[in-house]
Amino acid sequence: MGRVTVQRRILRLRDSAATRKVDMLAAEEPLEIRLNGSPLTITMRTPGDDFDLAAGFLVSEGVIGSAEDVDTIRYCAGATVDGENTYNVLDVRLAPGVEPPAVSLERNFYTTSSCGVCGKASLEAVTTVARWEVAGDPVRLEPALISTLPDRLRSAQRVFDRTGGLHAAGLFTSSGEMLCVREDVGRHNAVDKLLGWALRGGRLPLASTVLMVSGRASFELVQKAVMGGVPALAAVSAPSSLAVELAAERGLTLLGFVRGTSMNVYAGEERITRKAA
Amino acid sequence: MGRVTVQRRILRLRDSAATRKVDMLAAEEPLEIRLNGSPLTITMRTPGDDFDLAAGFLVSEGVIGSAEDVDTIRYCAGATVDGENTYNVLDVRLAPGVEPPAVSLERNFYTTSSCGVCGKASLEAVTTVARWEVAGDPVRLEPALISTLPDRLRSAQRVFDRTGGLHAAGLFTSSGEMLCVREDVGRHNAVDKLLGWALRGGRLPLASTVLMVSGRASFELVQKAVMGGVPALAAVSAPSSLAVELAAERGLTLLGFVRGTSMNVYAGEERITRKAA
Repeated sequence: MGRVTVQRRILRLRDSAATRKVDMLAAEEPLEIRLNGSPLTITMRTPGDDFDLAAGFLVSEGVIGSAEDVDTIRYCAGATVDGENTYNVLDVRLAPGVEPPAVSLERNFYTTSSCGVCGKASLEAVTTVARWEVAGDPVRLEPALISTLPDRLRSAQRVFDRTGGLHAAGLFTSSGEMLCVREDVGRHNAVDKLLGWALRGGRLPLASTVLMVSGRASFELVQKAVMGGVPALAAVSAPSSLAVELAAERGLTLLGFVRGTSMNVYAGEERITRKAA
Repeated sequence: MGRVTVQRRILRLRDSAATRKVDMLAAEEPLEIRLNGSPLTITMRTPGDDFDLAAGFLVSEGVIGSAEDVDTIRYCAGATVDGENTYNVLDVRLAPGVEPPAVSLERNFYTTSSCGVCGKASLEAVTTVARWEVAGDPVRLEPALISTLPDRLRSAQRVFDRTGGLHAAGLFTSSGEMLCVREDVGRHNAVDKLLGWALRGGRLPLASTVLMVSGRASFELVQKAVMGGVPALAAVSAPSSLAVELAAERGLTLLGFVRGTSMNVYAGEERITRKAA
């Protein structure tokens, strides 16, 4: 709780000069997520917004889709080393009638696909569990506005300023309003924290929003955007092949290399407004 | 096989100009690793060096420690969507007498720890399965040499040059000889590919080497270095709190923010040579 940074004495070398200083590190701790009392997964995360992280993980995996699907989320007492609560184990109780997943989940649910192991099967697995069609989202996005998002995300990263060590995910409206920003040592966790925040606030699906992430866009991040009903994902760096395929198949707008006034549009370019030639 | 890049037509926006071009993407595909015929894990990876990836994953998890521990590794025929082999499923057969893990592995083996869920338990889990003591490795490292590694790693990244989308891990001797470089959409996979290369070549433990990684240093990357017997890990960006704790506990030298002629030493500074004042 609140352990988002940890102080540590380090040795800093610059050219041939060595100085000792106190450095701030981004905290990393394991979190075990239990579902109806049974262990579901463990993730390495930065403590904070743990309930959002657990809820968002279950949104990403297709288990829940609204705040009403969750009965309670609480830290488990007694799951400790020395008898103290480490706040590293929590249990999500689903509301009556909400089915837990039939199989134990891996980090990505394409393991439940019965149609083989390949990129196509991974895309189909997402399609099977997706609750919302982002393809029909009519939102339009201005390139000039998109260009401002990396700096705005960066300046909202309070922990990064102290540690230089955290990934960030930010949710914006199409007119540029910043709805929520989350940081984590794990990229996927930062996005799950956003999705959990949205679920618990009754905001799913996240229609007409843009999700801006530091770093690259993987299949997993596009999957999470789709599961949250987000119609556009923008990344500072490159997307992978499967990220682009999933975005194209589900009708998500995918932007990469958003740097200065330039950006690449990998899928869903119909949402990007362009001046007439 | 060889599908390390994928071509895709994109729209590039620069200021108000839009151009169409063909872009190269880093390939991402699922890989299912089976152990003695039973499904063990699925990871999203860049195809290529898959046998090394599987072997290295098992090194990281403490299942194997030498080439003799492995009987065969082969792609499974028939694990397909349309009847063709996708080369996305492989099976590792352990040599007679080598025990498979008792429990199904998560991505990190701290799940098998019985002492609770916290950072300390994660450290203890690594200690329990570590095969080599890196603490006693007498290697000494020159800061001037360390400073050259990021550029050398970067220039050895052949796929990154085309896609801008891959993480890299490079293994160097203390005199700066580059032993091996691997790239992957997943940081952990790039390191596992290195460990598998080392195991299959009879090079474990990787005494007196330095592992240089793009990006940040997480607990998981330090764990992999420890499991490979690597005494020093250097990262371009920040380490997490638990990465530093594990390095300090296991006697690994951990360097972060290796940029230009400056770097931070987070653990194991006795290996870093310094001129007398």
